[in-house]
Amino acid sequence: MEKILEQTLLYDFYGELLTRHQKEIYEDVVLNDYSYSEVAEERGISRQGVHDLIKRCHRILQEYEEKLHLVEKFLSIRRQIQETQQLIRESERVDGAQLEQRLEEILKEL
Amino acid sequence: MEKILEQTLLYDFYGELLTRHQKEIYEDVVLNDYSYSEVAEERGISRQGVHDLIKRCHRILQEYEEKLHLVEKFLSIRRQIQETQQLIRESERVDGAQLEQRLEEILKEL
Repeated sequence: MEKILEQTLLYDFYGELLTRHQKEIYEDVVLNDYSYSEVAEERGISRQGVHDLIKRCHRILQEYEEKLHLVEKFLSIRRQIQETQQLIRESERVDGAQLEQRLEEILKEL
Repeated sequence: MEKILEQTLLYDFYGELLTRHQKEIYEDVVLNDYSYSEVAEERGISRQGVHDLIKRCHRILQEYEEKLHLVEKFLSIRRQIQETQQLIRESERVDGAQLEQRLEEILKEL
C-alpha cells in the first residue's frame, strides 16, 4: 500500500487515541503536507522536535494496528463488498442464495 | 443492550489493549463467570483488589469506545447487512440496482 494512504488509514482509525497536541502536528505534516520546518516555526518548537513527534505518532498508530488490526479488517471487508457489487453488476439475473452466502461471510468477518 | 452482551462486545474489540494480567482476571470474572472471591483466592489477591481491577477494566474499555465507537459501528453495519439478507430472502426477484445501492451505503459506514 502507498505509504501516505496507509498513514491516512491508520490515522483515520486510531487518531482519536493520540493527544490533541500530537494530532495537530500529525495532521499538519502528514495530512496537510507542511514541512517540518514550517510546523516547527508555527509551533515554536525545534525541527527535530517535530521530527521526533511524528516518528513517535507513527509508532503509536502502528502499535494499535498490531493489536486491533482495524485497517486490515477494513480493507478486507471493503474488498469483499466491492467484489459483491461487481458480481451484481455483471449478473444478468442476481442469484439470491449466492448473495446471501456472501453477506454471511462478510458478517463473520465484522 | 444487555449488560453482559455489551461487556463482551467491548472486550472483543478492545481487550487486546488491556495488560495480560487485566485480561486474565477480566475473562475469569466477566466471561467465565467466576466470583470475585474465587478469582481472589486463585490469584492470591484480595477480593477488593479483584473488584477494583474489574471496575477499572470496564472504565478503560468504555473510554476506548467513547473515542473509537467500534462497537456502535459494528452493530450498525451488522444490522444493515442482516436487513439486506432479509430483503433478498423476501424478494421473488432480486433488484440488483437496489442491492448495489445498499452495499454502497454499507461501504460508506465502514
